[in-house]
Amino acid sequence: MPRRPCEPPPDVASSTVRHRVPFYETDAMGVVHHSNYVRYLELARIRWMNEHHRSYREYVATGRHFATTHVEVDYYHTAAFDDEIRITAWLDWIRGASLRMAYRLTTSEGLIGSGATEHALVDLSGRVQRIPREEREQLARLAHRVR
Amino acid sequence: MPRRPCEPPPDVASSTVRHRVPFYETDAMGVVHHSNYVRYLELARIRWMNEHHRSYREYVATGRHFATTHVEVDYYHTAAFDDEIRITAWLDWIRGASLRMAYRLTTSEGLIGSGATEHALVDLSGRVQRIPREEREQLARLAHRVR
Amino acid sequence: MPRRPCEPPPDVASSTVRHRVPFYETDAMGVVHHSNYVRYLELARIRWMNEHHRSYREYVATGRHFATTHVEVDYYHTAAFDDEIRITAWLDWIRGASLRMAYRLTTSEGLIGSGATEHALVDLSGRVQRIPREEREQLARLAHRVR
Amino acid sequence: MPRRPCEPPPDVASSTVRHRVPFYETDAMGVVHHSNYVRYLELARIRWMNEHHRSYREYVATGRHFATTHVEVDYYHTAAFDDEIRITAWLDWIRGASLRMAYRLTTSEGLIGSGATEHALVDLSGRVQRIPREEREQLARLAHRVR
Repeated sequence: MPRRPCEPPPDVASSTVRHRVPFYETDAMGVVHHSNYVRYLELARIRWMNEHHRSYREYVATGRHFATTHVEVDYYHTAAFDDEIRITAWLDWIRGASLRMAYRLTTSEGLIGSGATEHALVDLSGRVQRIPREEREQLARLAHRVR
Repeated sequence: MPRRPCEPPPDVASSTVRHRVPFYETDAMGVVHHSNYVRYLELARIRWMNEHHRSYREYVATGRHFATTHVEVDYYHTAAFDDEIRITAWLDWIRGASLRMAYRLTTSEGLIGSGATEHALVDLSGRVQRIPREEREQLARLAHRVR
Repeated sequence: MPRRPCEPPPDVASSTVRHRVPFYETDAMGVVHHSNYVRYLELARIRWMNEHHRSYREYVATGRHFATTHVEVDYYHTAAFDDEIRITAWLDWIRGASLRMAYRLTTSEGLIGSGATEHALVDLSGRVQRIPREEREQLARLAHRVR
Repeated sequence: MPRRPCEPPPDVASSTVRHRVPFYETDAMGVVHHSNYVRYLELARIRWMNEHHRSYREYVATGRHFATTHVEVDYYHTAAFDDEIRITAWLDWIRGASLRMAYRLTTSEGLIGSGATEHALVDLSGRVQRIPREEREQLARLAHRVR
């Protein structure tokens, strides 16, 4: 059923964030509003950057950041107020000016969602830049695939 | 570049919502946070339901609703505080228990994003149901494709 | 019961925004989450600024803006998905470096809330500044009280 | 400057939540949008309920909950992406059908805000109820004041 692998490949560095669902992220169906999953992916992506690459603070300090160009999420099960969601992120691929992160979301009940996001390196004016060679090589060693 | 058509096909019923970006939807990059686009799709989807099918209120009154099972968004340009975003929605396909909506997002500058969402009809306990025949036939007449 | 007047005084310029409650602003109690009312006040405040004073865009262009230093909201009735909320804002008072806006929130059912916010003029580094004399005089003519 | 005590009184049970500011809670001024503080108060309030009284889940299971009737927040300093905010909550007062919680918000830099919220016990139809005597007595022992 999933459109993509829901586990980080064994050779790939991943990071996991735990997030207890606050009441304000629920909606009138009694479950987490689906838009919040996109925010959960960001939590895990930034954790991955911090643990394996560079902090977002450092990126911004150099006048660059990874703009989001694509988001996709599949929802397998709902989550409710006070559930603990674990979001795991890893680097799916990297190429000259962009990269793709992949994600799985689980609760104590099992897999509740999976997702992917793509990002382009941009400068402060929003122009796309090539990822500098040294950084790209560093990220390539962490990625599942190099494109 | 877009992964999907960014215009409703000529034979297909669409609905458009206008949304002026509030300050609280911006982020520290100075632009709309990308997670909000998923909320914008919901605005347009509910408008489409209201204009072409049935209101969400009616669905809930009958103990059923369309749960979101998949979301995808492509981001072509950023939007900023006070920009007016127009979000157009149409029904891409329908099958036995689910349907897919497609979306385009524009500002006065042009196309800024496109997206799609998939939904399954569920009852109050979250169980997937077949879309009743009469309704499915009604929706099929509005859809770009029947699967 | 209300802690403050819930109507703009007759001599005072006010602005009103209409906001149809999106589904994503509801919570698991089936009503609008109370934190969103603070966002609604911002919608009406910015509208008031645009209609009676200066646009927020202009403020930012001059390197200054009104930082929020205080928020208070009273909740009289809940609002639900698809309700139209009208939020009316007016200038309660102004003094050297700060001002206070007051608000009422209504639906077709009547008054659902009231609120007030206070703001200090700050520069880009966050330092409080006196409101320039000409601007203060202009705002004072619009205010209910001058302190 | 603060309009209320910014420390829990020494005789009063308090609870503290730590919240690392996610990027999606920042706004185009580069700091946490002020509306999020109201959400932070909820995080600490629910933690207090869990640690000192009853879990929100239990309340809902009995068909009752504490509706928010009033919110107030004072902002002393801004917070930014990735800052850790500690939010401490305590029970300021309780009376027949309502109660007031008080809050302080700090970062490693010191006090950044304080607040209070009031709540009425309501049933599922939203009607205000007296807090049952046993519960009220239990809460009164935890409160700073009984009104």
